[in-house]
Amino acid sequence: MSDDHASDRGDAVRALIDTGTEADLRMFLAGLSPQEVADLLETLDDEQREHVFPLFDTPRQASVLREVDTETSRDSLIAAIPDDQLADIVEHAASDDAADLVESIPEERRERVLDEVEDEERAAIEDLQRYAPDTAGGLMQKELLKVRIDQTVAEAVETIRREWEPKIGEVYDIYVVDADGRVQGRVRNRHLIIHPPHRRIAEIMLKDVRTVPVTMDQEKIAEIVQDYDLSSVAVVDEHDRLAGRILVDDIVDVIEEEATEDIHKMGGSEALGEPYLHVRFRSMVQKRAGWLAILFVGETLTASAMTYFEDEMRRAIVLGMFTPLIISSGGNSGSQATSLIIRAMALGEVRLADWWRVMRRELFAGFSLGCILAVIGMSRIMLWHELFGTYPDYPLLLAVTVGLSLIGIVTWGTLAGSMLPFLLRRLGFDPAHSSAPFVATLVDVSGLVIYFVVAMYVLKGTLL
Amino acid sequence: MSDDHASDRGDAVRALIDTGTEADLRMFLAGLSPQEVADLLETLDDEQREHVFPLFDTPRQASVLREVDTETSRDSLIAAIPDDQLADIVEHAASDDAADLVESIPEERRERVLDEVEDEERAAIEDLQRYAPDTAGGLMQKELLKVRIDQTVAEAVETIRREWEPKIGEVYDIYVVDADGRVQGRVRNRHLIIHPPHRRIAEIMLKDVRTVPVTMDQEKIAEIVQDYDLSSVAVVDEHDRLAGRILVDDIVDVIEEEATEDIHKMGGSEALGEPYLHVRFRSMVQKRAGWLAILFVGETLTASAMTYFEDEMRRAIVLGMFTPLIISSGGNSGSQATSLIIRAMALGEVRLADWWRVMRRELFAGFSLGCILAVIGMSRIMLWHELFGTYPDYPLLLAVTVGLSLIGIVTWGTLAGSMLPFLLRRLGFDPAHSSAPFVATLVDVSGLVIYFVVAMYVLKGTLL
Repeated sequence: MSDDHASDRGDAVRALIDTGTEADLRMFLAGLSPQEVADLLETLDDEQREHVFPLFDTPRQASVLREVDTETSRDSLIAAIPDDQLADIVEHAASDDAADLVESIPEERRERVLDEVEDEERAAIEDLQRYAPDTAGGLMQKELLKVRIDQTVAEAVETIRREWEPKIGEVYDIYVVDADGRVQGRVRNRHLIIHPPHRRIAEIMLKDVRTVPVTMDQEKIAEIVQDYDLSSVAVVDEHDRLAGRILVDDIVDVIEEEATEDIHKMGGSEALGEPYLHVRFRSMVQKRAGWLAILFVGETLTASAMTYFEDEMRRAIVLGMFTPLIISSGGNSGSQATSLIIRAMALGEVRLADWWRVMRRELFAGFSLGCILAVIGMSRIMLWHELFGTYPDYPLLLAVTVGLSLIGIVTWGTLAGSMLPFLLRRLGFDPAHSSAPFVATLVDVSGLVIYFVVAMYVLKGTLL
Repeated sequence: MSDDHASDRGDAVRALIDTGTEADLRMFLAGLSPQEVADLLETLDDEQREHVFPLFDTPRQASVLREVDTETSRDSLIAAIPDDQLADIVEHAASDDAADLVESIPEERRERVLDEVEDEERAAIEDLQRYAPDTAGGLMQKELLKVRIDQTVAEAVETIRREWEPKIGEVYDIYVVDADGRVQGRVRNRHLIIHPPHRRIAEIMLKDVRTVPVTMDQEKIAEIVQDYDLSSVAVVDEHDRLAGRILVDDIVDVIEEEATEDIHKMGGSEALGEPYLHVRFRSMVQKRAGWLAILFVGETLTASAMTYFEDEMRRAIVLGMFTPLIISSGGNSGSQATSLIIRAMALGEVRLADWWRVMRRELFAGFSLGCILAVIGMSRIMLWHELFGTYPDYPLLLAVTVGLSLIGIVTWGTLAGSMLPFLLRRLGFDPAHSSAPFVATLVDVSGLVIYFVVAMYVLKGTLL
């Protein structure tokens, strides 16, 4: 949606640059939100971008830069801004965005720009840079409103009038702290409106404030924010003192980002980390080639397994014809199981300790699914035999071989697909790596062995 | 995390029910959030649930019921609550939750319960029931705060003091409407605190208010909320009048739900629609068996294709040995491509109109990936030939056959995997159905044909 609008707007802006006056262009741009401007900038070329961006004032540049989420556009914008102006933008951004922005500045410029940033802001940025980007510390902004637990409503209102600045943006919770800076509760602006001025904050505050430590992983924070329907969460340092806050809109981004990473991994690729159409071709091929090559090498084991059964194949060529059907059924059932479990783990519905319950469930599910496919497969063979005479020798025994193999392989595929995420998590890897292709490869090789062993028993003395 | 705590708490509650006094139990429960109580209730059996739930007052029961998200626990709780009390809970819930709750009441009771609900609340619920659950109308709550554009700050504060009720919960934006009820802007509680009482709302309001029509799909709303970092969005009816609002915490749920559905579909299954461990076994097997059976029937075409090439197989049995390796490479590359594109579409990064750009990209990507795998595959064959003498006849020609087939199949698999989501969306289906197993099945059949045709050309006069 936004992309379509953005390209229309891109046309308009290009026309205004070429023919219109600067005043018209400014007028046009003034009506757009930061997100819309960011989308628009991404449709322009470097030169046009450098023409348009300086038309905004510093706070607006800061909020636009925040929304530009493709590295290439961001880099070209940053490259076009002089050091002192960039320092100005950094100062006008909330501390979390400022820290992200500083990270995007090429290293050789970074020191120079930071030197021009006011001490207070620089200290805040340097403080945030200490934390890993996917932890509470890396996500939080230091700008927030807090009042003292021993203040009255009137005093608190005074504090807020004095402390609020545009950089804070959405207020949501105003944190109530004690003399040591430890969080004791929260109030909302609403409470300060509806309660009389002389009441004590301690009497009117809500005590259900949620805090997370600076080191907490972003996935866990997202879970808490969602479980408790929070609009913001307070971050505390190792001494339990209020260090910053994380807003729900950053959590929304985290949730989408985590789901995207999981889906990319589940498709058998590294996470691209950037929008599909913006990621550089070379980097995309690299991210896909690695896993594809590993899977390919794993899959070469099927050639080895089949060499081992060459003799059986030679005697009963019909076995080879059902090979793709049989092993793909294992792969498909494994794919299903692994996707369900990976997602359930990501949502916290299933924990490591549940492996035994899941295993029992999937054992029965796999067996049931295997039986269903076996019935279809056996009917197909008998029907083709009756209709076209496709399988002249021992059709019933062939059908039994295929049917039993399907039950075995689908049960095994389902079990392997559901247990692999547990194994990966137990070993400290991301369960999402047990992708559909990964499970399919694993099950292909073992599926072949199951198939030929079943065939050797059932067809002994007849076809084999 | 919450689950682990919940089961510890479950133990504590069971002990308190058995041995302690009711007062102790009440005390214990009072310290928990609605979400924690809901998690706890899900670990109890029906009888224990019916013992614990009545200990809460009505508003708390309403907020707990809202958080119970497995159908079975919800149904058993609802069954245990008498009609008049259930009506009371419905009245105390925000309209969107009330409507959901009413939907959960078995049909034979629903009328009786609704009869006891106050007229005003019943009208609100019946109004919301007109909308599809995955649209703005189905998501919105009617409770909100609005002020008139011609009021002063002091008058607006008075309106808010009068209108606010606990049911509204988080306020976020206070909407500014004109005499006809059309949304003109928004103010925040903060503005009412920092602006002097005599100022007009028209002068201090923010004009950047976002509205969505009642009919808008939830996925699109999620996109807007995220693009513009909104904490709430106003919903307007066909006459552009304010009809309700959707809060960001409901959007967070939508985003997770949509990602979960996509992941389930991408794994080759229907979306389960409930947490993995809570969905009934029978329903789960049904949701998985459908797609698995369709894929299986599709995959039987491989057996037909191979029957067609039986003669070639018989003459060069070695071809059969590489079949799984070759076709799975097509499936894996198709899986990657389809997962990347489905996700990019879900995030709005890629539109239908981009199909041509994507196709060009994937054509090159597929060809590059095919070449990489071809090099590995050919090396493997030549190496095994040198080391173990595995392929005594025409190893180089065999390697060429495998290499060329891989290039063709991986290019084709990548292209098919990336274009299928576009085709499905164009036809009005959910692109997420072009799951990894679906693409793999499609590519398996066509891959076999590519492989044997390449073999017939390359090996003519030698092995064939």
